[in-house]
Amino acid sequence: MSAAFSRPSGRAADQLRDVRIERGYTAHAEGSVLVCFGQTRVLCTASVENRVPAFLRGKGEGWITAEYGMLPRATHTRSDREASRGKQGGRTLEIQRLIGRSLRACVDRKALGERTITLDCDVLQADGGTRTAAITGAYVALVDAVQWLLDRGEIKPRAGRTPVIGAVAAVSVGIYKGVPVLDLDYAEDSDCDTDMNVVMNDGGGFIELQGTAEGHAFRRDELEALTSLAEAGIAQLVAHQRAALRLPV
Amino acid sequence: MSAAFSRPSGRAADQLRDVRIERGYTAHAEGSVLVCFGQTRVLCTASVENRVPAFLRGKGEGWITAEYGMLPRATHTRSDREASRGKQGGRTLEIQRLIGRSLRACVDRKALGERTITLDCDVLQADGGTRTAAITGAYVALVDAVQWLLDRGEIKPRAGRTPVIGAVAAVSVGIYKGVPVLDLDYAEDSDCDTDMNVVMNDGGGFIELQGTAEGHAFRRDELEALTSLAEAGIAQLVAHQRAALRLPV
Amino acid sequence: MSAAFSRPSGRAADQLRDVRIERGYTAHAEGSVLVCFGQTRVLCTASVENRVPAFLRGKGEGWITAEYGMLPRATHTRSDREASRGKQGGRTLEIQRLIGRSLRACVDRKALGERTITLDCDVLQADGGTRTAAITGAYVALVDAVQWLLDRGEIKPRAGRTPVIGAVAAVSVGIYKGVPVLDLDYAEDSDCDTDMNVVMNDGGGFIELQGTAEGHAFRRDELEALTSLAEAGIAQLVAHQRAALRLPV
Amino acid sequence: MSAAFSRPSGRAADQLRDVRIERGYTAHAEGSVLVCFGQTRVLCTASVENRVPAFLRGKGEGWITAEYGMLPRATHTRSDREASRGKQGGRTLEIQRLIGRSLRACVDRKALGERTITLDCDVLQADGGTRTAAITGAYVALVDAVQWLLDRGEIKPRAGRTPVIGAVAAVSVGIYKGVPVLDLDYAEDSDCDTDMNVVMNDGGGFIELQGTAEGHAFRRDELEALTSLAEAGIAQLVAHQRAALRLPV
Amino acid sequence: MSAAFSRPSGRAADQLRDVRIERGYTAHAEGSVLVCFGQTRVLCTASVENRVPAFLRGKGEGWITAEYGMLPRATHTRSDREASRGKQGGRTLEIQRLIGRSLRACVDRKALGERTITLDCDVLQADGGTRTAAITGAYVALVDAVQWLLDRGEIKPRAGRTPVIGAVAAVSVGIYKGVPVLDLDYAEDSDCDTDMNVVMNDGGGFIELQGTAEGHAFRRDELEALTSLAEAGIAQLVAHQRAALRLPV
Amino acid sequence: MSAAFSRPSGRAADQLRDVRIERGYTAHAEGSVLVCFGQTRVLCTASVENRVPAFLRGKGEGWITAEYGMLPRATHTRSDREASRGKQGGRTLEIQRLIGRSLRACVDRKALGERTITLDCDVLQADGGTRTAAITGAYVALVDAVQWLLDRGEIKPRAGRTPVIGAVAAVSVGIYKGVPVLDLDYAEDSDCDTDMNVVMNDGGGFIELQGTAEGHAFRRDELEALTSLAEAGIAQLVAHQRAALRLPV
Repeated sequence: MSAAFSRPSGRAADQLRDVRIERGYTAHAEGSVLVCFGQTRVLCTASVENRVPAFLRGKGEGWITAEYGMLPRATHTRSDREASRGKQGGRTLEIQRLIGRSLRACVDRKALGERTITLDCDVLQADGGTRTAAITGAYVALVDAVQWLLDRGEIKPRAGRTPVIGAVAAVSVGIYKGVPVLDLDYAEDSDCDTDMNVVMNDGGGFIELQGTAEGHAFRRDELEALTSLAEAGIAQLVAHQRAALRLPV
Repeated sequence: MSAAFSRPSGRAADQLRDVRIERGYTAHAEGSVLVCFGQTRVLCTASVENRVPAFLRGKGEGWITAEYGMLPRATHTRSDREASRGKQGGRTLEIQRLIGRSLRACVDRKALGERTITLDCDVLQADGGTRTAAITGAYVALVDAVQWLLDRGEIKPRAGRTPVIGAVAAVSVGIYKGVPVLDLDYAEDSDCDTDMNVVMNDGGGFIELQGTAEGHAFRRDELEALTSLAEAGIAQLVAHQRAALRLPV
Repeated sequence: MSAAFSRPSGRAADQLRDVRIERGYTAHAEGSVLVCFGQTRVLCTASVENRVPAFLRGKGEGWITAEYGMLPRATHTRSDREASRGKQGGRTLEIQRLIGRSLRACVDRKALGERTITLDCDVLQADGGTRTAAITGAYVALVDAVQWLLDRGEIKPRAGRTPVIGAVAAVSVGIYKGVPVLDLDYAEDSDCDTDMNVVMNDGGGFIELQGTAEGHAFRRDELEALTSLAEAGIAQLVAHQRAALRLPV
Repeated sequence: MSAAFSRPSGRAADQLRDVRIERGYTAHAEGSVLVCFGQTRVLCTASVENRVPAFLRGKGEGWITAEYGMLPRATHTRSDREASRGKQGGRTLEIQRLIGRSLRACVDRKALGERTITLDCDVLQADGGTRTAAITGAYVALVDAVQWLLDRGEIKPRAGRTPVIGAVAAVSVGIYKGVPVLDLDYAEDSDCDTDMNVVMNDGGGFIELQGTAEGHAFRRDELEALTSLAEAGIAQLVAHQRAALRLPV
Repeated sequence: MSAAFSRPSGRAADQLRDVRIERGYTAHAEGSVLVCFGQTRVLCTASVENRVPAFLRGKGEGWITAEYGMLPRATHTRSDREASRGKQGGRTLEIQRLIGRSLRACVDRKALGERTITLDCDVLQADGGTRTAAITGAYVALVDAVQWLLDRGEIKPRAGRTPVIGAVAAVSVGIYKGVPVLDLDYAEDSDCDTDMNVVMNDGGGFIELQGTAEGHAFRRDELEALTSLAEAGIAQLVAHQRAALRLPV
Repeated sequence: MSAAFSRPSGRAADQLRDVRIERGYTAHAEGSVLVCFGQTRVLCTASVENRVPAFLRGKGEGWITAEYGMLPRATHTRSDREASRGKQGGRTLEIQRLIGRSLRACVDRKALGERTITLDCDVLQADGGTRTAAITGAYVALVDAVQWLLDRGEIKPRAGRTPVIGAVAAVSVGIYKGVPVLDLDYAEDSDCDTDMNVVMNDGGGFIELQGTAEGHAFRRDELEALTSLAEAGIAQLVAHQRAALRLPV
């Protein structure tokens, strides 16, 4: 890293943006979290329903799914409302599939019974990293929704464990002006060479890894630097999650 | 009104819910307002674009339009995401047409030039009256967006007037347990005989009036009682708008 | 009203267009009515089906719903066929919701049993006031369909009353060149200041009231003048309905 | 043909239903015809527009196209409204393609200039043979629309001929209880072995021939009997068209 | 036929293109056939499913249906992918309805039990005649799928007959430069006066006949010449089918 | 790796399936390749069009895009046809976005001029790894299409280089029964713990990396083992591409 290197935000290369996780943001959902990674703000709600998709009926296990949306003016210029265009775009579908897979990785679906928990992640304001913020916040909403089920006695811990096993958080990393950096904001995201979204659990295992070379192809040593950055960042995000959930950090 | 009459919220029959109008709620839009009527919260953004719909091209005037959405878990139980279902429902289209017409009523579109201002009204939390809150908040976002155009010199006042002429606000009224009441919340809305949405300007003129008899048909004297209640309520809402805009109330 | 005032059609301000209600217009439907308000012609059919929407299943009550369509060349210039565009527009959905609500207001749905009556209102020729003509005609088709059920013994009167309670009719009123007028035709509709659709029952109660200020906002005294005009017009329309049904007027 | 053979309607095997062709049925279209083949009633309008589809732009020739629709309760039981289902079914698309091709066969498109004439064929009441009635009626609407263009001087005859060359009409034939019959009504159509739609011009040439074996495959001699029946029927339909157009029969 | 007449391909007027029918083209389907009519190549798969459409449930009989698609670059210039445009075009729907009807004509649906066999016909390369190749190839795939059911004992022959009764094949014929020709390729198809698709069974009966006059209307003697050509061509195609199925020709 | 470990196919852990790349598979496209990874067969065509998407108009550069489809019976059980369902699923959109990004990474778009090359990748038969086969085959089709442009003189090499810079190929890797393996087939794919798709260029740089933990989260050393396997596999695939293109390997 050259002496002259600086990020648009003035952050250090391995520095997250300010993270805020606010529970109980709206009233009706079983879990409702506003998560902010700097200027990126995503409202994540968890809704419990007593039904499962057709392919799971009668199997005695539950389902976790996610939907993602961006308010039309969450971005610098207004984008079309997907409901009005009549379909969700490829980017939206890709992101909501990623969120769903990531959160299913930390749930014991048998313990849920035939219930679906839907994580709705709606971006109120976008400044890069909306999908990683969404995963990080949705995890907290999911924990609250599962606790709501436990509190009402609808489900019971199995062998002393709740259906949520460990934690899941996500962060983006990338190569900006030749330097690996953590948690890209929009200014960096639109001007970087490689962009990678990393989802990990609190045991340091990888759940999803999606890297894209925007400019030049990235090398193996860059991949290693990026995953190291992500690992450190996710450890901090997990601490934020635990603090929000008032668990010992 | 019988002595025994009481509203679920304990409000007086002619009492609005707590109103909050917060400008600059998000960063990117030319106008961005969070409006709260009690537990109902709507994010209204105003976006300026240098184009008009095909039917106005070359006519030298602008356009004001609105879109309305409800986050899936803004409500007591989760409703399907319209983007995912592939179309906006009839209720959504009806509401966004109403918002658009209401705000066009206070704009000198010639003074705008060939620009479109889109008011996106997205309900973060619903407790009755989302469309009236949306109109009331969108007005403030619209004023901010027009001021943004004036500040940048893109448009100029005509004869000393800005393109926004007067103010527009809206409130619901209805007959709840036989009594005309102002600003129905969800508990009242789902159990009332008549429900009326009223849009007025600050000169006391009606812009839109949409009344529906849910139970028994309403009589002319009830219509008068309801419009009187609405008139008084809208005067207070206009004062809230002016306070939010730091105009003398 | 100034001496110089005249309507394009030469009608008096409080004069309906020629009204024609023709029963049995087509052969298959349980009720089939062609209703004409002057040059506006709408075919209204009532179809009985032995099923109800999902939200009513097992509740022992029926449902009344409406669909509205406009033939592509019902209008001065051809408009796109909605079936071909792949969706119904906002105006269409808004109108069919209005027709449905209006007719549900005069039906004892418990007495229907688990049946749906669908009112299809298709505009063959448009000259203003299609939605009010549709409601007025659909009422007659509905009465015929209910009579068809009674005649076949599928339903029975309850306490001596048929499931259709009273009558429902609709008319538009508006302020044209400063004068309140009844039953606007297209020439007036496209050049008026205020346009209001009024649905009432035969007891003089309001079922729906939808007023829109196209030009200047309307005042309370104008609202009163308009509702008075509508009241008188609807009384005449109810008489036309009764005549068509061969009931004593 | 056995002595015992009889058609549900009592018609002779080679007998058309009563044919009625009523011009000027609605007011706005350049051509507007109600065509009745017995209880089958189709409203055919011809709309002239000064544009052509993209593939014809700049080529100096016109286009003839058709759209077909069935009112939901034109049939014995109500069918879904295609606009509400969000797409036109395969049968609808097949029929409107057939109508369009059939009418293009009698038009000198160069003589039309860059104009489109759209034939909207909407079935008000169905009793079999809607597509053949539609073609027969749409031809008359087309002639009226072309005459409207000639009358206004927008187009001119070329070499003394109008852009409509000859006439086009259509009829169905089929094998009902072993006997070839002309112009099937619904009772026959739903119980026949072979069903064939034939479109011919007034010179006795075939324009379209679409035969389907519903039960047993049909033989060559049956094909000949059917086309002979169709030929005779179409000659009568052309006479009806000429009478409606007040041309010498 | 003038001495100077020649087809673009050099074929005789009554000559088929090279026909190839390759069974077992792909591995998963119960029947899978690549059929080639010269440069036209269509992959036809037959899929067996243990369910029937709603209208057949509980009736103890099966269903045969077809779907047709064209790979975007099967043609000279790329056409839009229908999945991407969001709907199947009219031509596609028309063809798949034709294929389905044609194959239902040779199946004893009672003998199938409540099963659906879907014939997917996907055009890998198009050079005219894709629908007739599809029918000819789909027949072979259908026979293989039915044999698969017989081999597994899921269905049994009735009175010694399998559920497939006889054979079905199809070919196009047309009038090219005034001469009736068999099996049009793309060069002929886009430049012919009359185009007719003929589906017949192996007993010489007609199942479908769809003729279209592209240029001048065709006369009765031309119709006879065309059907004679088709008859001879289909006899050869049936022989190709039998050879592919290793049946005595 | 335990002694008892074996892959369903009997392959070694680092062994590709048989790879076949067949150019000129269909006739019309500018590039047309059938690529087989064992039983997985994908037809990749490259189509050149003289237009670019709206966002690139007037910028003097070209565009590379991809579409992906699966024939309904490419799989073990039939899946719905996306054209018939009316939309492409999330998986399809995700894959075609991946293919498009991967191939754009090896093209000098300025050198293409305002042209679009569309890579259509249609799966004829699926046995795991369809997206990686598609990328590997589409590269060859792309090279052929660019050569077609060079051969016709429509574009010219810049500084002696063609617009295709280097090569791109892709392979899947995963952890099957605890062992990292190369190029998963369907049997492995549906029963593995981690699944990763890797796209690299011929210089050993990563273009895309998408890893998903299906069962337990994967560790950093597993990530390294997987990327090493992929690296070796892609080197072999690049050699196959060069052989197919008759370039020195």
